[in-house]
Amino acid sequence: MEQTETTGGLSAARLLALADGIFAITMTLLVFELKVPEGAAAHLGQSLGALWPKFGACLLGFITLGFSWIGHHNQYVAIVRTDRPFLWINIAFLGSTCFMPFSSALLGTYTFDPIAICTYGANMTLAGLALYWHWSYATTGGRLVRTETSPELVKATKLRVIRAPVGYLLGSLLCGVSPIASLVVFAAIPISFIIPGRVDRHLK
Amino acid sequence: MEQTETTGGLSAARLLALADGIFAITMTLLVFELKVPEGAAAHLGQSLGALWPKFGACLLGFITLGFSWIGHHNQYVAIVRTDRPFLWINIAFLGSTCFMPFSSALLGTYTFDPIAICTYGANMTLAGLALYWHWSYATTGGRLVRTETSPELVKATKLRVIRAPVGYLLGSLLCGVSPIASLVVFAAIPISFIIPGRVDRHLK
Amino acid sequence: MEQTETTGGLSAARLLALADGIFAITMTLLVFELKVPEGAAAHLGQSLGALWPKFGACLLGFITLGFSWIGHHNQYVAIVRTDRPFLWINIAFLGSTCFMPFSSALLGTYTFDPIAICTYGANMTLAGLALYWHWSYATTGGRLVRTETSPELVKATKLRVIRAPVGYLLGSLLCGVSPIASLVVFAAIPISFIIPGRVDRHLK
Amino acid sequence: MEQTETTGGLSAARLLALADGIFAITMTLLVFELKVPEGAAAHLGQSLGALWPKFGACLLGFITLGFSWIGHHNQYVAIVRTDRPFLWINIAFLGSTCFMPFSSALLGTYTFDPIAICTYGANMTLAGLALYWHWSYATTGGRLVRTETSPELVKATKLRVIRAPVGYLLGSLLCGVSPIASLVVFAAIPISFIIPGRVDRHLK
Repeated sequence: MEQTETTGGLSAARLLALADGIFAITMTLLVFELKVPEGAAAHLGQSLGALWPKFGACLLGFITLGFSWIGHHNQYVAIVRTDRPFLWINIAFLGSTCFMPFSSALLGTYTFDPIAICTYGANMTLAGLALYWHWSYATTGGRLVRTETSPELVKATKLRVIRAPVGYLLGSLLCGVSPIASLVVFAAIPISFIIPGRVDRHLK
Repeated sequence: MEQTETTGGLSAARLLALADGIFAITMTLLVFELKVPEGAAAHLGQSLGALWPKFGACLLGFITLGFSWIGHHNQYVAIVRTDRPFLWINIAFLGSTCFMPFSSALLGTYTFDPIAICTYGANMTLAGLALYWHWSYATTGGRLVRTETSPELVKATKLRVIRAPVGYLLGSLLCGVSPIASLVVFAAIPISFIIPGRVDRHLK
Repeated sequence: MEQTETTGGLSAARLLALADGIFAITMTLLVFELKVPEGAAAHLGQSLGALWPKFGACLLGFITLGFSWIGHHNQYVAIVRTDRPFLWINIAFLGSTCFMPFSSALLGTYTFDPIAICTYGANMTLAGLALYWHWSYATTGGRLVRTETSPELVKATKLRVIRAPVGYLLGSLLCGVSPIASLVVFAAIPISFIIPGRVDRHLK
Repeated sequence: MEQTETTGGLSAARLLALADGIFAITMTLLVFELKVPEGAAAHLGQSLGALWPKFGACLLGFITLGFSWIGHHNQYVAIVRTDRPFLWINIAFLGSTCFMPFSSALLGTYTFDPIAICTYGANMTLAGLALYWHWSYATTGGRLVRTETSPELVKATKLRVIRAPVGYLLGSLLCGVSPIASLVVFAAIPISFIIPGRVDRHLK
C-alpha cells in the first residue's frame, strides 16, 4: 500500500485490493466445495473417508493458490504504477485464478481422468504465463517499477516465474504416459516454490 | 488510498474497500456458477463440451466486470471526497454489479432468448448510467474532486463513460432484429474499452 | 484508514477491513440467492415474473445493508482506536449483518408470514442496537474517539442511530395488526435514512 | 497498515488484506449454510425450530472465528515484516480457518457424533498451533517484530495463544467420556477469550 505511487494516474493499491479479495474468496470457496455428507448418521466415518480425494484436491488447490498469491505479491515489491494494459493483464491472471475452484473440483471428482488433469494443467499453465507476462510488461524499460529495481531482480524473477507454467505444461503432457505422474508433478510444483530462491535475497 | 482526503467527513477509502470487495466476490461467484458435471466419468469431454455456452457467458461476464471495475477505478484518480448522496449513488452502481452473476448466468442458460438478452442489456445499461451519474455528481461544481481536475478530463470521461450504456441499450433493442447481433454488441463493448482513449492521456 | 491512530495497541484499520469485507460479501450473496430458473425455455418471462417477491426482498435487503454500512462507516469519522470489548461489539454487529441474507431470503419466500416478518424485524432490531452500543461504548468518556469530537455529534448520532431499531421493533409488532404494514415500515426505514440529517452537518 | 515497514521486501499489508478477506468470507459463508426451509408455509415456526442445532453451531462458529481473528489481529501490533516461510505459516493458519465452515456444519448436522466432535476439535487445535507457530516464528530473535517489542509481551502472548489448542485437544479427548462435555469445552474456549488478559495491558 505504502509501496504505491500516485503521481501519474492509476493506483496499484486498488488493484491489490481486488487481487487480494479474489484470492481470499477463491481460497475460501475451494474449501467450501467440501460438503457435509447428508443422512450419514450411522456411518459418518465412512462417508468422510469417501471425501478424501476431494479433500486432497482441496488441499492441493489451497497450496497452489497460496503459491500463486505469493508470486503475485512479491512482484509488487518492485511494481509501483499501473496503466490500462497492465490492469487487463491482471484481469487475465485473476480470471485464471477464479477458474481454480472449478479445475480443482474437477480434479477432485475425476482424479485420474486425462481430461480433468489437462484442464487443471491448462488452467495453471495459463495462470503462470499471465504472471510471467505481468512481470515482463511491468519491467520492460522500467515501465511500472521503482527506478532502483536491479536488472538482476528482473531476470531472477523471470526465471523463477517461468518455471511454474513450464512445469504444469510438462505435467499435463505426462498424463499420456501416466495420470499419477501428472498428479505428482502438480503437487511438486507449488511445494518446490516454498523453498526460498535467489529472488528472496533481492527482496531482503 | 493515499488519494483520499479526510478533512470533511466521509472517507473514500472505505467506499473503495467495499467496491473492490464487491467486484472481487462478483467476479469469483460468476465463475463459481460453473459446476463440475456429476456422474460423467464415461464421457467427461462431452459433458464439459456441453458447458461451453455457460463458459462463454462466464468469460464475457468476467471481462465485462473487469471493464466496469476499471471504469469505476479510474474515476477515483480525481474523486477524493464523498458525501451521503454519493455513497447512495455508489450503492446503486454496486447493486447493478451484484446482479451481474444472475444476468450472466441467465444469458448462459437461455443464450438466444430475447428476455435473457434484454435482462442482461438492461442490467448493464443501468450499471453504466449509474457510473455516469457517479462521475457527473462528483464533478459538478468540483463537488468531490481534486481542485486541479481539468474540465477536459471531466468532459472526456463523460463521453467515454456514456458510450457503454448507450451501446448496451442499442444492443438490447437489436434483439428484435437478431439475438446474435445483440450478443455481438454485448461482447464488443467491453473489448472496445480495452483500447486506451483520450482519458488515458489525462491519467498520465 | 488514514483516520486511525496506532499508538495504543489495536488498530481500527483491520477492523474496518473485516467489516467492509463482510458487507461486500453479504451484499453479493444476498443477490446470489436469486437463482436462474431451470428448464424454463418455453416460458422464461413467466418464470422470471414468479421471482418478483424474491427480487423485491433482495432489493430491500440490499438497500438495508447499504444503510447499515453507511451507519457503521460514518461512526469511524470520529472513532480512531479500538480495544478488546469494542472488537467484540463489532463482531456482534457483524454477526447480525451476516444473518441478513438468511432473514431476507426468509422474507422473500414467506413474505406475509408473521414468523418471517418477526425474524427479519428481530434481526434488524439487534443489528441496530449493536450499532447504538458500538457508538455509545466508543464515545463514553471519549474512550475511542478523536479528542475534538463534539458532544453535539455524539448526541445527534445517538438519536439518529436509535431511530432504526425502534422502528424495526415497532414494525415487527405491527404484524399482529397487518403484515403489509410491517413490510411498509421495513421498506420505509432505510429509505428514510437516505435523507441527510443533522449529523451530516457535523461530518462536513 | 500504518504499522508495516516496507524496507526489506515483502509487505505485511497485503498479508493482512488476504487474512481479513478470508475471515470476512468464512464468517459470512458460515451463516450462509443456514438455508431457508422450502415448502414450509403451513408450519414455518416448526421448520425454523428444527434449524436450532445448525443455528447454534453457526453462532458458536462465528464467535470462534471472531476470537481467532482477534488473536491473529493482535499479533500484528508487534509484527511489522514478513518473509517467505512466514507467508506459508500464515497460509497454513488461513487454511485451517477456511475449513471452519465445513467442521462447523458437520458439528451442526451430527452434533453428538464423536467423529464430528473430533473433526471440529482437530481443526481448531491445528488452527491454534499454527497461530502459536506464527507468533513464535515472528518473535524468535526479534525476526519480524518491532525492535521495541518487550520479552514480557512475547511470553504473555505465547501463554495466551497456546491455551486455545490445548483446550481444544482436551475437549476432543473428552468426547470419549461425554460428547456434551466436549461441546461445553468448545463453547467455553472462545468465550473465555473475550475476557481481557495480561496481554491487553501490553497492548495499551
